[in-house]
Amino acid sequence: MRISELARRGGVTTATAKYYLREGLLPPGRLTSATQAQYDEPHVQRLRLTRALLASGLSVATAREVLGHLDSPADGPLDLLAEVQTTLTPVEGPVDRERVTALLRRWGWNTDVALDGPVAALASALDVAEAAGFTIGPELLDGYAAAAHEVAELDIAGVPTTSSEDAVQHVVLGTILLEPVLLALRRLAQADVSARRFG
Amino acid sequence: MRISELARRGGVTTATAKYYLREGLLPPGRLTSATQAQYDEPHVQRLRLTRALLASGLSVATAREVLGHLDSPADGPLDLLAEVQTTLTPVEGPVDRERVTALLRRWGWNTDVALDGPVAALASALDVAEAAGFTIGPELLDGYAAAAHEVAELDIAGVPTTSSEDAVQHVVLGTILLEPVLLALRRLAQADVSARRFG
Repeated sequence: MRISELARRGGVTTATAKYYLREGLLPPGRLTSATQAQYDEPHVQRLRLTRALLASGLSVATAREVLGHLDSPADGPLDLLAEVQTTLTPVEGPVDRERVTALLRRWGWNTDVALDGPVAALASALDVAEAAGFTIGPELLDGYAAAAHEVAELDIAGVPTTSSEDAVQHVVLGTILLEPVLLALRRLAQADVSARRFG
Repeated sequence: MRISELARRGGVTTATAKYYLREGLLPPGRLTSATQAQYDEPHVQRLRLTRALLASGLSVATAREVLGHLDSPADGPLDLLAEVQTTLTPVEGPVDRERVTALLRRWGWNTDVALDGPVAALASALDVAEAAGFTIGPELLDGYAAAAHEVAELDIAGVPTTSSEDAVQHVVLGTILLEPVLLALRRLAQADVSARRFG
Protein backbone atom coordinates (compact mmCIF):
# COMPACT_ATOMS: atom_id res chain seq x y z
CA MET A 1 0.00 0.00 0.00
CA ARG A 2 1.03 3.63 -0.44
CA ILE A 3 1.76 5.98 2.45
CA SER A 4 -1.69 7.60 2.34
CA GLU A 5 -3.32 4.18 2.78
CA LEU A 6 -0.83 3.25 5.52
CA ALA A 7 -1.66 6.47 7.38
CA ARG A 8 -5.40 5.90 7.02
CA ARG A 9 -5.13 2.32 8.34
CA GLY A 10 -3.01 3.52 11.27
CA GLY A 11 -5.41 6.31 12.15
CA VAL A 12 -3.04 9.22 11.52
CA THR A 13 -2.64 11.88 8.83
CA THR A 14 -0.18 11.32 5.98
CA ALA A 15 1.95 14.17 7.39
CA THR A 16 2.19 12.32 10.72
CA ALA A 17 3.18 9.05 9.01
CA LYS A 18 5.91 10.92 7.13
CA TYR A 19 7.08 12.47 10.40
CA TYR A 20 7.33 9.00 11.99
CA LEU A 21 9.41 7.85 9.00
CA ARG A 22 11.73 10.86 9.27
CA GLU A 23 12.16 10.27 13.02
CA GLY A 24 13.04 6.62 12.45
CA LEU A 25 10.01 5.40 14.39
CA LEU A 26 8.75 3.60 11.29
CA PRO A 27 11.11 1.65 9.02
CA PRO A 28 11.29 2.84 5.39
CA GLY A 29 9.05 1.17 2.83
CA ARG A 30 10.11 -0.72 -0.29
CA LEU A 31 10.99 1.84 -3.00
CA THR A 32 9.00 1.34 -6.21
CA SER A 33 10.16 4.52 -7.95
CA ALA A 34 12.33 7.49 -7.08
CA THR A 35 9.49 9.13 -5.19
CA GLN A 36 7.22 6.27 -4.16
CA ALA A 37 7.44 3.48 -1.63
CA GLN A 38 5.20 0.57 -0.76
CA TYR A 39 4.26 -0.44 2.79
CA ASP A 40 2.78 -3.65 4.12
CA GLU A 41 0.92 -5.06 7.11
CA PRO A 42 3.81 -4.96 9.63
CA HIS A 43 4.09 -1.23 8.89
CA VAL A 44 0.45 -0.76 9.90
CA GLN A 45 1.08 -2.58 13.20
CA ARG A 46 4.21 -0.53 13.86
CA LEU A 47 2.40 2.70 13.05
CA ARG A 48 -0.40 1.89 15.52
CA LEU A 49 2.14 0.94 18.15
CA THR A 50 4.12 4.16 17.67
CA ARG A 51 0.97 6.21 17.91
CA ALA A 52 0.04 4.45 21.18
CA LEU A 53 3.47 5.00 22.72
CA LEU A 54 3.41 8.70 21.93
CA ALA A 55 -0.21 9.00 23.11
CA SER A 56 0.89 7.46 26.43
CA GLY A 57 3.21 10.39 27.00
CA LEU A 58 6.54 8.98 25.79
CA SER A 59 8.90 11.37 24.04
CA VAL A 60 9.93 10.60 20.46
CA ALA A 61 13.42 9.65 21.69
CA THR A 62 12.10 7.25 24.34
CA ALA A 63 9.56 5.74 21.91
CA ARG A 64 12.40 5.15 19.42
CA GLU A 65 14.41 3.36 22.11
CA VAL A 66 11.44 1.22 23.20
CA LEU A 67 10.75 0.23 19.58
CA GLY A 68 14.43 -0.70 19.29
CA HIS A 69 13.96 -3.23 22.09
CA LEU A 70 11.12 -4.78 20.09
CA ASP A 71 13.31 -5.05 16.99
CA SER A 72 16.17 -6.81 18.76
CA PRO A 73 14.48 -8.54 21.67
CA ALA A 74 16.42 -9.50 24.77
CA ASP A 75 17.01 -13.07 25.88
CA GLY A 76 13.64 -13.51 27.52
CA PRO A 77 10.87 -11.62 29.29
CA LEU A 78 12.97 -10.94 32.40
CA ASP A 79 15.81 -9.27 30.47
CA LEU A 80 13.37 -7.45 28.27
CA LEU A 81 11.45 -6.07 31.23
CA ALA A 82 14.77 -4.86 32.66
CA GLU A 83 15.69 -3.14 29.38
CA VAL A 84 12.33 -1.43 29.05
CA GLN A 85 12.32 -0.32 32.70
CA THR A 86 15.81 1.13 32.27
CA THR A 87 14.66 3.06 29.20
CA LEU A 88 11.57 4.38 30.94
CA THR A 89 13.27 5.34 34.22
CA PRO A 90 16.81 6.40 33.34
CA VAL A 91 19.10 6.92 36.30
CA GLU A 92 20.85 10.24 36.89
CA GLY A 93 23.76 10.07 39.31
CA PRO A 94 24.48 7.52 42.03
CA VAL A 95 21.55 5.63 43.56
CA ASP A 96 21.18 5.16 47.31
CA ARG A 97 19.52 1.74 47.40
CA GLU A 98 19.52 1.31 51.17
CA ARG A 99 16.09 2.62 52.09
CA VAL A 100 14.27 0.96 49.19
CA THR A 101 16.08 -2.35 49.73
CA ALA A 102 14.91 -2.35 53.37
CA LEU A 103 11.34 -1.83 52.17
CA LEU A 104 11.58 -4.63 49.58
CA ARG A 105 12.86 -6.98 52.29
CA ARG A 106 9.96 -6.01 54.55
CA TRP A 107 7.56 -6.99 51.77
CA GLY A 108 9.47 -10.17 50.91
CA TRP A 109 10.27 -8.97 47.39
CA ASN A 110 13.36 -10.09 45.48
CA THR A 111 15.95 -7.32 45.94
CA ASP A 112 18.46 -8.61 43.35
CA VAL A 113 16.20 -7.95 40.37
CA ALA A 114 15.24 -4.42 41.50
CA LEU A 115 16.85 -2.14 38.92
CA ASP A 116 18.48 1.18 39.73
CA GLY A 117 15.83 3.07 37.71
CA PRO A 118 12.70 2.10 39.66
CA VAL A 119 14.67 2.02 42.96
CA ALA A 120 15.81 5.61 42.40
CA ALA A 121 12.30 6.61 41.26
CA LEU A 122 10.75 5.27 44.48
CA ALA A 123 13.42 6.79 46.72
CA SER A 124 13.02 10.16 45.02
CA ALA A 125 9.19 10.07 45.13
CA LEU A 126 9.32 9.35 48.89
CA ASP A 127 11.87 12.15 49.43
CA VAL A 128 9.79 14.65 47.46
CA ALA A 129 6.64 13.82 49.44
CA GLU A 130 8.42 14.12 52.77
CA ALA A 131 10.13 17.38 51.83
CA ALA A 132 6.65 18.77 51.13
CA GLY A 133 5.56 17.81 54.63
CA PHE A 134 3.43 14.85 53.51
CA THR A 135 3.96 11.92 55.86
CA ILE A 136 3.79 8.48 54.23
CA GLY A 137 3.26 6.15 57.18
CA PRO A 138 4.25 2.47 57.06
CA GLU A 139 0.62 1.39 56.86
CA LEU A 140 -0.04 3.53 53.79
CA LEU A 141 3.16 2.41 52.08
CA ASP A 142 2.55 -1.28 52.85
CA GLY A 143 -0.96 -0.97 51.45
CA TYR A 144 0.33 0.69 48.28
CA ALA A 145 2.94 -2.05 47.90
CA ALA A 146 0.32 -4.79 48.29
CA ALA A 147 -1.91 -3.18 45.65
CA ALA A 148 1.06 -2.68 43.29
CA HIS A 149 2.00 -6.34 43.68
CA GLU A 150 -1.54 -7.44 42.78
CA VAL A 151 -1.35 -5.28 39.67
CA ALA A 152 2.05 -6.74 38.77
CA GLU A 153 0.73 -10.29 39.19
CA LEU A 154 -1.96 -9.46 36.62
CA ASP A 155 0.63 -7.85 34.34
CA ILE A 156 2.95 -10.83 34.35
CA ALA A 157 0.19 -13.47 34.30
CA GLY A 158 -0.95 -11.97 31.00
CA VAL A 159 2.43 -12.41 29.26
CA PRO A 160 1.78 -14.92 26.46
CA THR A 161 4.04 -17.95 26.15
CA THR A 162 3.14 -18.63 22.52
CA SER A 163 6.18 -16.91 21.04
CA SER A 164 8.95 -14.69 22.31
CA GLU A 165 7.81 -11.89 19.95
CA ASP A 166 4.36 -11.97 21.51
CA ALA A 167 5.87 -11.94 25.00
CA VAL A 168 8.11 -9.00 24.13
CA GLN A 169 5.28 -6.99 22.64
CA HIS A 170 3.06 -7.70 25.63
CA VAL A 171 5.64 -6.73 28.25
CA VAL A 172 6.53 -3.48 26.52
CA LEU A 173 2.97 -2.44 25.79
CA GLY A 174 1.60 -3.52 29.15
CA THR A 175 4.27 -1.64 31.08
CA ILE A 176 3.61 1.58 29.20
CA LEU A 177 -0.04 1.53 28.16
CA LEU A 178 -1.53 0.39 31.46
CA GLU A 179 0.05 3.19 33.54
CA PRO A 180 -2.53 5.79 32.48
CA VAL A 181 -5.27 3.17 33.00
CA LEU A 182 -4.14 2.62 36.60
CA LEU A 183 -3.89 6.34 37.37
CA ALA A 184 -7.32 7.09 35.90
CA LEU A 185 -8.84 4.20 37.87
CA ARG A 186 -7.28 5.54 41.08
CA ARG A 187 -8.90 8.94 40.54
CA LEU A 188 -12.30 7.41 39.80
CA ALA A 189 -11.97 5.17 42.86
CA GLN A 190 -11.01 8.17 45.03
CA ALA A 191 -14.22 9.90 43.98
CA ASP A 192 -16.23 6.78 44.82
CA VAL A 193 -14.61 6.36 48.25
CA SER A 194 -14.90 10.10 49.01
CA ALA A 195 -18.58 10.07 48.16
CA ARG A 196 -19.12 7.20 50.59
CA ARG A 197 -17.15 8.92 53.34
CA PHE A 198 -18.04 12.59 52.88
CA GLY A 199 -21.04 12.61 50.52
CA MET B 1 13.95 36.02 57.23
CA ARG B 2 15.49 37.25 53.99
CA ILE B 3 15.07 35.49 50.64
CA SER B 4 18.46 33.75 50.87
CA GLU B 5 17.46 32.18 54.19
CA LEU B 6 14.00 31.29 52.83
CA ALA B 7 15.62 29.55 49.86
CA ARG B 8 18.06 27.66 52.10
CA ARG B 9 15.26 26.47 54.40
CA GLY B 10 13.20 25.35 51.39
CA GLY B 11 16.12 23.51 49.82
CA VAL B 12 16.39 25.60 46.65
CA THR B 13 18.78 28.25 45.33
CA THR B 14 17.98 31.94 45.79
CA ALA B 15 17.53 32.20 42.01
CA THR B 16 14.87 29.47 42.15
CA ALA B 17 13.05 31.17 45.04
CA LYS B 18 13.02 34.42 43.03
CA TYR B 19 11.69 32.53 40.01
CA TYR B 20 8.82 31.10 42.13
CA LEU B 21 8.02 34.65 43.31
CA ARG B 22 7.99 35.98 39.74
CA GLU B 23 5.75 33.12 38.62
CA GLY B 24 3.27 33.80 41.44
CA LEU B 25 3.85 30.37 42.99
CA LEU B 26 5.04 32.04 46.19
CA PRO B 27 3.24 35.10 47.63
CA PRO B 28 5.37 38.26 47.97
CA GLY B 29 7.08 38.95 51.28
CA ARG B 30 6.60 41.98 53.53
CA LEU B 31 8.63 44.90 52.11
CA THR B 32 11.12 46.34 54.61
CA SER B 33 12.84 48.68 52.16
CA ALA B 34 12.66 49.47 48.47
CA THR B 35 14.77 46.42 47.63
CA GLN B 36 14.28 44.06 50.56
CA ALA B 37 11.45 41.87 51.79
CA GLN B 38 10.97 39.65 54.80
CA TYR B 39 9.51 36.14 54.67
CA ASP B 40 8.13 33.96 57.43
CA GLU B 41 7.33 30.33 58.25
CA PRO B 42 4.29 29.93 55.94
CA HIS B 43 6.56 30.99 53.07
CA VAL B 44 8.92 28.12 53.88
CA GLN B 45 6.03 25.65 53.83
CA ARG B 46 4.73 27.04 50.55
CA LEU B 47 8.19 26.92 49.01
CA ARG B 48 8.62 23.23 49.94
CA LEU B 49 5.17 22.46 48.61
CA THR B 50 5.84 24.24 45.32
CA ARG B 51 9.11 22.39 44.92
CA ALA B 52 7.35 19.06 45.51
CA LEU B 53 4.59 19.80 42.99
CA LEU B 54 7.11 20.71 40.29
CA ALA B 55 9.29 17.69 41.17
CA SER B 56 6.22 15.47 40.67
CA GLY B 57 6.03 16.58 37.06
CA LEU B 58 3.43 19.35 37.24
CA SER B 59 3.88 22.33 34.92
CA VAL B 60 4.28 25.78 36.48
CA ALA B 61 0.78 26.69 35.28
CA THR B 62 -0.82 23.57 36.79
CA ALA B 63 1.13 24.00 40.05
CA ARG B 64 -0.11 27.59 40.25
CA GLU B 65 -3.69 26.41 39.80
CA VAL B 66 -3.31 23.65 42.42
CA LEU B 67 -1.85 26.14 44.91
CA GLY B 68 -4.81 28.41 44.18
CA HIS B 69 -7.15 25.65 45.36
CA LEU B 70 -5.20 25.54 48.62
CA ASP B 71 -5.55 29.30 49.07
CA SER B 72 -9.30 29.33 48.56
CA PRO B 73 -10.38 25.85 49.61
CA ALA B 74 -13.62 24.37 48.38
CA ASP B 75 -16.59 23.53 50.59
CA GLY B 76 -15.16 20.24 51.81
CA PRO B 77 -12.91 17.37 50.79
CA LEU B 78 -15.33 16.06 48.15
CA ASP B 79 -15.54 19.39 46.29
CA LEU B 80 -11.82 19.94 46.71
CA LEU B 81 -10.97 16.53 45.27
CA ALA B 82 -13.23 17.36 42.32
CA GLU B 83 -11.47 20.70 41.76
CA VAL B 84 -8.01 19.18 41.95
CA GLN B 85 -8.92 16.29 39.64
CA THR B 86 -10.35 18.74 37.12
CA THR B 87 -7.12 20.76 37.23
CA LEU B 88 -4.96 17.65 36.81
CA THR B 89 -7.01 16.03 34.05
CA PRO B 90 -8.48 18.85 31.99
CA VAL B 91 -11.06 17.78 29.45
CA GLU B 92 -10.63 18.55 25.76
CA GLY B 93 -13.77 18.24 23.70
CA PRO B 94 -16.92 16.24 24.43
CA VAL B 95 -16.64 13.16 26.67
CA ASP B 96 -18.29 9.86 25.78
CA ARG B 97 -19.14 8.57 29.26
CA GLU B 98 -21.04 5.46 28.17
CA ARG B 99 -18.28 2.85 28.24
CA VAL B 100 -16.71 4.03 31.50
CA THR B 101 -20.10 4.38 33.20
CA ALA B 102 -20.86 0.75 32.31
CA LEU B 103 -17.55 -0.29 33.91
CA LEU B 104 -18.20 1.75 37.07
CA ARG B 105 -21.62 0.10 37.39
CA ARG B 106 -20.04 -3.35 36.99
CA TRP B 107 -17.71 -2.53 39.91
CA GLY B 108 -20.48 -0.98 42.01
CA TRP B 109 -18.82 2.45 42.01
CA ASN B 110 -20.78 5.69 42.31
CA THR B 111 -21.21 7.00 38.76
CA ASP B 112 -22.56 10.46 39.70
CA VAL B 113 -19.31 11.65 41.29
CA ALA B 114 -17.12 10.44 38.39
CA LEU B 115 -15.81 13.65 36.83
CA ASP B 116 -15.40 14.18 33.10
CA GLY B 117 -11.60 14.44 33.46
CA PRO B 118 -10.82 10.99 34.87
CA VAL B 119 -13.66 9.42 32.84
CA ALA B 120 -12.17 10.81 29.63
CA ALA B 121 -8.67 9.80 30.76
CA LEU B 122 -9.74 6.18 31.30
CA ALA B 123 -11.71 6.01 28.04
CA SER B 124 -8.76 7.42 26.13
CA ALA B 125 -6.19 5.12 27.82
CA LEU B 126 -8.34 2.08 26.91
CA ASP B 127 -8.74 3.31 23.32
CA VAL B 128 -5.00 3.91 22.95
CA ALA B 129 -4.14 0.43 24.21
CA GLU B 130 -6.67 -1.24 21.93
CA ALA B 131 -5.58 0.75 18.87
CA ALA B 132 -2.06 -0.58 19.53
CA GLY B 133 -3.38 -4.13 19.45
CA PHE B 134 -3.13 -4.65 23.21
CA THR B 135 -6.18 -6.47 24.49
CA ILE B 136 -7.33 -5.52 27.98
CA GLY B 137 -9.57 -8.40 28.98
CA PRO B 138 -12.31 -8.02 31.61
CA GLU B 139 -10.32 -10.02 34.16
CA LEU B 140 -7.30 -7.73 33.86
CA LEU B 141 -9.41 -4.58 34.04
CA ASP B 142 -11.45 -5.84 37.01
CA GLY B 143 -8.21 -6.68 38.84
CA TYR B 144 -6.77 -3.24 38.12
CA ALA B 145 -9.99 -1.64 39.35
CA ALA B 146 -9.91 -3.65 42.59
CA ALA B 147 -6.29 -2.66 43.25
CA ALA B 148 -7.04 1.01 42.45
CA HIS B 149 -9.97 0.93 44.86
CA GLU B 150 -7.75 -0.44 47.65
CA VAL B 151 -5.28 2.38 47.00
CA ALA B 152 -8.10 4.95 47.04
CA GLU B 153 -9.40 3.58 50.37
CA LEU B 154 -5.93 4.20 51.83
CA ASP B 155 -5.82 7.67 50.26
CA ILE B 156 -9.15 8.76 51.68
CA ALA B 157 -8.72 7.03 55.07
CA GLY B 158 -5.63 9.20 55.58
CA VAL B 159 -7.49 12.50 55.13
CA PRO B 160 -7.27 14.25 58.51
CA THR B 161 -10.45 15.56 60.10
CA THR B 162 -8.62 17.97 62.43
CA SER B 163 -9.11 21.05 60.25
CA SER B 164 -10.32 21.77 56.77
CA GLU B 165 -6.90 23.25 55.87
CA ASP B 166 -5.22 19.98 56.85
CA ALA B 167 -7.76 18.00 54.85
CA VAL B 168 -7.26 20.21 51.82
CA GLN B 169 -3.49 19.97 51.99
CA HIS B 170 -3.65 16.19 52.38
CA VAL B 171 -6.01 15.59 49.47
CA VAL B 172 -4.03 17.78 47.09
CA LEU B 173 -0.63 16.41 48.07
CA GLY B 174 -1.75 12.80 48.27
CA THR B 175 -3.38 12.89 44.85
CA ILE B 176 -0.27 14.29 43.22
CA LEU B 177 2.71 13.03 45.24
CA LEU B 178 1.65 9.40 45.57
CA GLU B 179 1.26 8.83 41.81
CA PRO B 180 5.01 8.41 41.22
CA VAL B 181 5.18 6.22 44.34
CA LEU B 182 2.51 3.89 42.93
CA LEU B 183 4.13 3.69 39.49
CA ALA B 184 7.59 2.96 40.93
CA LEU B 185 6.13 0.27 43.20
CA ARG B 186 4.41 -1.35 40.21
CA ARG B 187 7.74 -1.58 38.34
CA LEU B 188 9.53 -3.04 41.35
CA ALA B 189 6.69 -5.53 41.87
CA GLN B 190 6.81 -6.51 38.18
CA ALA B 191 10.49 -7.37 38.56
CA ASP B 192 9.73 -9.45 41.66
CA VAL B 193 6.86 -11.34 39.99
CA SER B 194 8.87 -11.85 36.77
CA ALA B 195 11.80 -13.26 38.72
CA ARG B 196 9.47 -15.77 40.37
CA ARG B 197 7.89 -16.74 37.06
CA PHE B 198 10.81 -16.60 34.63
CA GLY B 199 13.91 -16.41 36.84
